Amino acid sequence: MLYLIGLGLGDAADITVKGLQAVKRCSRVYLEAYTSVLTVGKEALEEYYGMELILADRDLVEQGADQILKDADVTDVGFLVVGDPFGATTHSDLVLRAVHAGIPYKVIHNASIMNAVGCCGLQLYNFGETVSLVFWTETWRPESFYDKICKNRTAGLHTLCLLDIKVKEQSIENMMRGKKIFEPPRFMTVSQAADQLIQIIQRRRGEGEELGMTEDTVCVGVARLGADDQTIRTATLRQLASCDLGGPLHSLVVTGRLHPLEVDMLRVNAEPDALQHLHMIDSSTYCS
Amino acid sequence: MLYLIGLGLGDAADITVKGLQAVKRCSRVYLEAYTSVLTVGKEALEEYYGMELILADRDLVEQGADQILKDADVTDVGFLVVGDPFGATTHSDLVLRAVHAGIPYKVIHNASIMNAVGCCGLQLYNFGETVSLVFWTETWRPESFYDKICKNRTAGLHTLCLLDIKVKEQSIENMMRGKKIFEPPRFMTVSQAADQLIQIIQRRRGEGEELGMTEDTVCVGVARLGADDQTIRTATLRQLASCDLGGPLHSLVVTGRLHPLEVDMLRVNAEPDALQHLHMIDSSTYCS
Repeated sequence: MLYLIGLGLGDAADITVKGLQAVKRCSRVYLEAYTSVLTVGKEALEEYYGMELILADRDLVEQGADQILKDADVTDVGFLVVGDPFGATTHSDLVLRAVHAGIPYKVIHNASIMNAVGCCGLQLYNFGETVSLVFWTETWRPESFYDKICKNRTAGLHTLCLLDIKVKEQSIENMMRGKKIFEPPRFMTVSQAADQLIQIIQRRRGEGEELGMTEDTVCVGVARLGADDQTIRTATLRQLASCDLGGPLHSLVVTGRLHPLEVDMLRVNAEPDALQHLHMIDSSTYCS
Repeated sequence: MLYLIGLGLGDAADITVKGLQAVKRCSRVYLEAYTSVLTVGKEALEEYYGMELILADRDLVEQGADQILKDADVTDVGFLVVGDPFGATTHSDLVLRAVHAGIPYKVIHNASIMNAVGCCGLQLYNFGETVSLVFWTETWRPESFYDKICKNRTAGLHTLCLLDIKVKEQSIENMMRGKKIFEPPRFMTVSQAADQLIQIIQRRRGEGEELGMTEDTVCVGVARLGADDQTIRTATLRQLASCDLGGPLHSLVVTGRLHPLEVDMLRVNAEPDALQHLHMIDSSTYCS
């Protein structure tokens, strides 16, 4: 049996009881380590489970799937994913390979940012399409996520923005030289994401485009959701561009139309400097 | 401390280790029992935790919140919610009351249908706004969810349809007589939901409206997600109208534009009679 086990968000104790029981049954367990991270590392999980884990990077999952699935028809193999196992496309691929090899699989679900973000005070059923922000390079500065955010806002909906993670990336130079030297991991911060959005807004304003959001749009920055030191900051986009929410992972929510109950909840988690802007929402249209 | 603890989907062992530890610390624990249900009842949870639970119906949560929060500043009180604690608006209200009473709260997240539905093979970031279907009555037959589904489909997005739950409902007669007699609980099935959608489609077709979906649109019915006997059936809306997916809870997904990997995943879970329709998708536009 192949067990795809969600680890949830936070630390080792966020696994479900069912998930932990499955881990203990497995003869080998992989830890997927490139689409998300917990606030604790591999060693902390190993100590918690009392067993060694095999780190599964992108290469192993995408090219070495046969290795992961080896003997999984006669023994139990675990595949641990931060959040829920179906947060990333790449795991569908692993399931398909298992199915085609006649290996049974079982999914043990857990919280992911896609539902846990509800704790910021915004109702999950008021969210539109989720978008991803990638690190811009000199030559690649995609803006399609901005249009999706504006489309959601036009429909009154909030947008969850998932922020880029780069682990085990090679520089172009090292890649061309065939050197297996990896850059330090990078995790996009709320501040970096807000800065990208502001750059897009300013460029489009310069071109006379009608804007679907501005620097004053109320947003919510969340960091390390589910961990003891989770941080939720409600503020304008401009304010978030200069905030420091600490270590990874970060996510950003751009609000759409706000219901009074949502405003009340946002206020609970708002930093003092953002309260003023929620007051503004209160006295105007519930949609900055 | 007020602990809002997600139970996940399925049975008692779907609670997280952190959640179970919190339950054991609490001097009293409420079980929210009107927005969702597990495949096991209160008694099974009580046996699992080794303690008694207090059933929290809508009346208690909405009108007796003070009772739930009583002494929570000096002792630990647990509030168990099927899925994730922030799936339902009503729990935001409980949090707000706690905050205003100066009671600290902590959320222990878990899987909810909003993210676990990814196991049907459709990518979570290809979902648009979530909709709710309520049981129609003689005089109240809302159709707004249909328009939202069509709007999502136009944008190429899938739609998760949450299906109505009626627990502890009074008949109008008993309510008027002030009799505390409650109707048996009702859970909308995939078949009932598909039937409502077909009625809307047929009515609008009769009025010459251009249709955003038809009886042949590929949908996915899911039942008891996360439980050992979970059922996932990919089929046309028409086929789902006559299917029996067994006991609650059910949810329905209406597909939007399908990515080839999504088609492959849907095929894994497709009943034989639906395979043919996925072949049709394959050879046409990836959007029925």
